[in-house]
Amino acid sequence: MKGRILSGMRPTGKLHIGHLSVLENWVRFQDEYECFYTIVDWHALTTAYDDTSAIKENVREMLLDWLSVGLDPEKSTIFLQSDVKEHAELYLLFAMITPLSWLERCPTYKDQVQQLGKQGKDISTYGFLGYPLLQAADILVYKADTVPVGEDQLPHLELCREIARRFNFIYKTELFPEPQAKLSRVPLLPGIDARKMSKSYGNEIPISATREEIFEKVRMMVTDPGRIRRHDPGNPEVCVVHTYNQIYNPEEVEERVTQCRQAEIGCVACKKRLAEKLDEALAPYREKRAELAQNPALLEEILEEGARRARAVASETMKEVREAMKI
Amino acid sequence: MKGRILSGMRPTGKLHIGHLSVLENWVRFQDEYECFYTIVDWHALTTAYDDTSAIKENVREMLLDWLSVGLDPEKSTIFLQSDVKEHAELYLLFAMITPLSWLERCPTYKDQVQQLGKQGKDISTYGFLGYPLLQAADILVYKADTVPVGEDQLPHLELCREIARRFNFIYKTELFPEPQAKLSRVPLLPGIDARKMSKSYGNEIPISATREEIFEKVRMMVTDPGRIRRHDPGNPEVCVVHTYNQIYNPEEVEERVTQCRQAEIGCVACKKRLAEKLDEALAPYREKRAELAQNPALLEEILEEGARRARAVASETMKEVREAMKI
Repeated sequence: MKGRILSGMRPTGKLHIGHLSVLENWVRFQDEYECFYTIVDWHALTTAYDDTSAIKENVREMLLDWLSVGLDPEKSTIFLQSDVKEHAELYLLFAMITPLSWLERCPTYKDQVQQLGKQGKDISTYGFLGYPLLQAADILVYKADTVPVGEDQLPHLELCREIARRFNFIYKTELFPEPQAKLSRVPLLPGIDARKMSKSYGNEIPISATREEIFEKVRMMVTDPGRIRRHDPGNPEVCVVHTYNQIYNPEEVEERVTQCRQAEIGCVACKKRLAEKLDEALAPYREKRAELAQNPALLEEILEEGARRARAVASETMKEVREAMKI
Repeated sequence: MKGRILSGMRPTGKLHIGHLSVLENWVRFQDEYECFYTIVDWHALTTAYDDTSAIKENVREMLLDWLSVGLDPEKSTIFLQSDVKEHAELYLLFAMITPLSWLERCPTYKDQVQQLGKQGKDISTYGFLGYPLLQAADILVYKADTVPVGEDQLPHLELCREIARRFNFIYKTELFPEPQAKLSRVPLLPGIDARKMSKSYGNEIPISATREEIFEKVRMMVTDPGRIRRHDPGNPEVCVVHTYNQIYNPEEVEERVTQCRQAEIGCVACKKRLAEKLDEALAPYREKRAELAQNPALLEEILEEGARRARAVASETMKEVREAMKI
């Protein structure tokens, strides 16, 4: 029997190429696992309850990105979290059995409250404290046994296992599996200014970038600051273009390193070549996306069908949950 | 337009006659308001998540009591909370906008955690902290404007109004009313040992008590401890039988007081007379109950039809909530 994967992303709008390696993993999983991929719009409320104006558009943009890179609604169940009310019901039931201290000691909780507090954003809400519980419900309502996560999410997944164990123990059942993390080596792609790639820094390259955008972003990439004149030798180790070449232009990367060190190529030419390769890599996604964007009815259909399939599984689990709890 | 009432009780099983005055109010409200009466089984989990074995039976017993005293499924929407998932969805959404501090400062919270802690029961769960939020969802999902409560519930209702205001403010809407308390003068009926009537003290008289049970309970009632022999004069002021006579035997209460003070009647005879009156008062409920208990399919039907009607209203509200929140 195939394992079952649950993974999700908050609807943050257009994704950038820093997300691509995660998405490419998701695409591969589709043949090895039974996959549930969800856009977690309820989670978006934890930090943005006071400005929800962009959520719907963000959902649409993210779905377009997902589909354009190869998430396939024929293979996977792709759905919007808030379309499946069972997540809320299980969250409520988990709330009843979860010691407050388990959530208070979550390493991410105080960190994030503090961090966002500095930005003048108060997220010390009841819902934010409880969002690892909602995550646990997202996963366990499908009895997913495998969850692709980054290192930073490991504490939440441990909490999810603790809740599964506690439920199974209290209600003398084996209903819930203890989902295991699937850690993937994800190459870290910096933003064009060498910092972490993030929309909030404006240093990202969208998966859906146009050819012009790609050339413009690459043109602005930070290179070796020690290489001032064209004939100075450069140091690829401190050049963002070099980091990108390793991923998007692996055939030429060695040649390029030599040329740079010997000042045989200028940054302008080197960047143009990368932009060309990047454009080649992203063009198919962009084309698929443009095609899908023409068909809003199809997008709705995909989410509806996904929700239907998700609900079928989730409502089955909830029936078992209620039986186990004798309510 | 009629006002709308929401009220509920945790399924604690058979109710006792201490609950009667509240229920009699509920019965009266049926003609003045549009009433939603709910058995809040999810709330029962806040303090009893670790032993749910009795919940279903308790629901059944309480429903029988409700119907036997005159709650009428033709007039009111009578339903089980967990049958209407919209309560959970609204609870989740309220969680996102509610500052943790609002819940932490709830006067009942720390009190109850401490009180039950002394009994060796740990209820410091995330769900228990959040149960005023679930209450707010119970009320507001029907846009109820009137909530019959006891004094002790006033802080929770104030919190419910604060949440309604906060939601309306954040999402620039007038969706939720600010429900007002309907405080009723409820005569306090002591248990047969003169303490607060409570099943946990074993000093209660069930609404559904048999004639034999009634006589037995009244026989055990605490009377004036200063009246040792039959011919000692008694003091009705410290006699539980006297308190009951005021409610269940008002025509004879003056006569009885005189007789007691002059030792013209013994406690045994006095109690027999009260038991007779009490039995008279409870007999119609008992008979109606016996009849209903014969028909488990009818009980299920009532809850199903109630849930159907409740869901119709609640799902309409949730549509408006999602629109207001733009999700």
